[in-house]
Amino acid sequence: MNWDSLFADRTQYMKRSTVREILKLTARPEVISFAGGLPAPELFPVERIRQAADTVLAERGPEVLQYSTTEGMPELRELIARRLSHGKFQVHPDNILITSGSQQAVDMLARIFLNEGDGVIVENPTYVGMMTSWRPFQLRFTAVPTDGDGMIVDELEPLLADHPKLMYAIPTFQNPQGTTLTRQRRAQLAALIARYNLPFIEDDPYGELRYSGDPAPSVLAMEAEHRGATGLDGSVIYCGTFSKVLTPGLRIGWVAAALPVIDKLVQVKQATDLHTSTFNQYVTYEVARDEAFLEAHIANLRDVYRQRRDLMLATMEEHFPEEVTWTRPEGGLFLMVTMPEHLNARDVLKLALAKDVAFVPCDDFFIGDTGKNTFRLNFSNARPERIVEGIKRLGATLKEVV
Amino acid sequence: MNWDSLFADRTQYMKRSTVREILKLTARPEVISFAGGLPAPELFPVERIRQAADTVLAERGPEVLQYSTTEGMPELRELIARRLSHGKFQVHPDNILITSGSQQAVDMLARIFLNEGDGVIVENPTYVGMMTSWRPFQLRFTAVPTDGDGMIVDELEPLLADHPKLMYAIPTFQNPQGTTLTRQRRAQLAALIARYNLPFIEDDPYGELRYSGDPAPSVLAMEAEHRGATGLDGSVIYCGTFSKVLTPGLRIGWVAAALPVIDKLVQVKQATDLHTSTFNQYVTYEVARDEAFLEAHIANLRDVYRQRRDLMLATMEEHFPEEVTWTRPEGGLFLMVTMPEHLNARDVLKLALAKDVAFVPCDDFFIGDTGKNTFRLNFSNARPERIVEGIKRLGATLKEVV
Repeated sequence: MNWDSLFADRTQYMKRSTVREILKLTARPEVISFAGGLPAPELFPVERIRQAADTVLAERGPEVLQYSTTEGMPELRELIARRLSHGKFQVHPDNILITSGSQQAVDMLARIFLNEGDGVIVENPTYVGMMTSWRPFQLRFTAVPTDGDGMIVDELEPLLADHPKLMYAIPTFQNPQGTTLTRQRRAQLAALIARYNLPFIEDDPYGELRYSGDPAPSVLAMEAEHRGATGLDGSVIYCGTFSKVLTPGLRIGWVAAALPVIDKLVQVKQATDLHTSTFNQYVTYEVARDEAFLEAHIANLRDVYRQRRDLMLATMEEHFPEEVTWTRPEGGLFLMVTMPEHLNARDVLKLALAKDVAFVPCDDFFIGDTGKNTFRLNFSNARPERIVEGIKRLGATLKEVV
Repeated sequence: MNWDSLFADRTQYMKRSTVREILKLTARPEVISFAGGLPAPELFPVERIRQAADTVLAERGPEVLQYSTTEGMPELRELIARRLSHGKFQVHPDNILITSGSQQAVDMLARIFLNEGDGVIVENPTYVGMMTSWRPFQLRFTAVPTDGDGMIVDELEPLLADHPKLMYAIPTFQNPQGTTLTRQRRAQLAALIARYNLPFIEDDPYGELRYSGDPAPSVLAMEAEHRGATGLDGSVIYCGTFSKVLTPGLRIGWVAAALPVIDKLVQVKQATDLHTSTFNQYVTYEVARDEAFLEAHIANLRDVYRQRRDLMLATMEEHFPEEVTWTRPEGGLFLMVTMPEHLNARDVLKLALAKDVAFVPCDDFFIGDTGKNTFRLNFSNARPERIVEGIKRLGATLKEVV
């Protein structure tokens, strides 16, 4: 069989995710990996999930194991809508679609919006998992430059003259940089979105994981406030997930959007996988409906991850050579390191792996031929002693090459 | 916002699944529904799944709730490979990809194989869920006629001269007809597939649910046997699922295929949803690895569904008008009814719903402008007394219109 001749043209634009391939290299337990976007497994509320699974199976077993609606479990959609509502801005459960993780939301949004060759605006660097999904559409990506305060919104408006189909960004604790759009820039962005009716995908997997600084409202909420809207009827499409605040293994994410968008997404979701696991939706709801528990759990995550972030930053300060710089995130799971221009992070990764320490080179996160000298570090997954040891080894590696 | 002007061109070929929209009409408990492809929820092994969820969370909690590999849980892939292997034909775990239900397999196969306008061969009628997913690719569907013994393979070979990209079929207990390709026709089909290197998607969600007649090997196995192959390296791509033999609510399906196909599917799966729920894979494995339990459970399903099929057929015989004919399946979940040509099943459905009984009109399952006088009945979901009552009401409806 000559399979290669049979695959669709779009498959030539597909490739295995760099991140997921590096994760395979780091499976050996002696490797200290800062590569994955993994939450700390020792913090998973395993007992609570055990109770929840037991309860929903005991009380509603046949129902939780049956096929269910494409839109998702009504009670879970209500809970999410309530959590997104603030003051006058009230999100309705009909504005929520449950997805199989937020990657599925990003993928389905491409299927409903993108024609081949469409123009799309993204931050530079941007989330590589979006690129993995969207690359086969052969889009024209236009990059908004970023600095330590997120995207430079002043540079966005000129790009809108080109009538892009939509814009995608992670405004809060961005992947890979960890940076956050300031409140002032959010206001500026919200005004632009409203003025241009710009479809704006706000991907927000990390928003609840803030360790320092002042919280800023979502772009979704600020755009509604800018228009004085009381419901979700604007052009912001918000993607959320329970993966980072509960567990990723249940694959429960969601999209919040205007009704015509939800309606189209439901059609795609029916074609894609009929619906998200009924069982996992019930388990997630059973855990999350105890909002006191959920808030306490998230507060604990914040405490632990704050310590790990601070420990990583302090250890980097001590052991990294001065030619190297990095971001200082107020939340999320990642920070990004920039080496001198002449260094290539893929070469450095080989040296680091020889010392049993791993990270993700960021070149695939960049639009254009830049970023080869950058890499991403995750600080949520490794325990403190391994953070210290891993950063020391990485510092030694960097000192050999700078 | 004028969303309609923003949606991708392909969305004009999307529509909500007829079946899933009818399911919403049948949510009232007083409606006796033969519409869905639902297993009997009272037969779900709820206690066993409760134990399994408890065990995997107690023993490996952090691991079962974490992100995991795109390919799927190794032990589950081994178990599936073992169950597909017979005699000399040995399937390797690397030939298996775990999917979020078999709908996802069908959807991802389109993404790796189909260019716009490609020619695809299907049975007529064929599975509407495949059409829901594949329609946006604007394919040229060519239909192989069917009779009570499945597709008429004699009529397939001339169609291959047109170099179709691939073929899709449900050879065993087809949806919607319930018919099964005979062993002799399978041999003929296997020979054609091998001779033409025809990529053939064997969708087999119901294969283990046989109530009468002699079992026939899968087309996958027969094609390998025809070539004397000992491994999975031919052009048959096999889609299976635990939805019908355990529960659909866990959304665990799989694809078994040659390695280059699995490799491409892994790339798409990374883009689509990263991986199938880790938790649900562990729970499914924990239940299914007790093969004595699994076999006994499937044997029980067969007993109950056989009784329901027989009861439905006997009640139809007694209460349906003689102008109406239907298939007599040896397994699966469905049979198909054909009314006189002048009747439209959508009109009849309205009359039936007024009597609180429901089915699925089959026109959307047909290629071309035929099948308006046909509908599908599910016999696995309703309890015996409701089967009798529902078929009586349907018989009365039919007698009013023929």
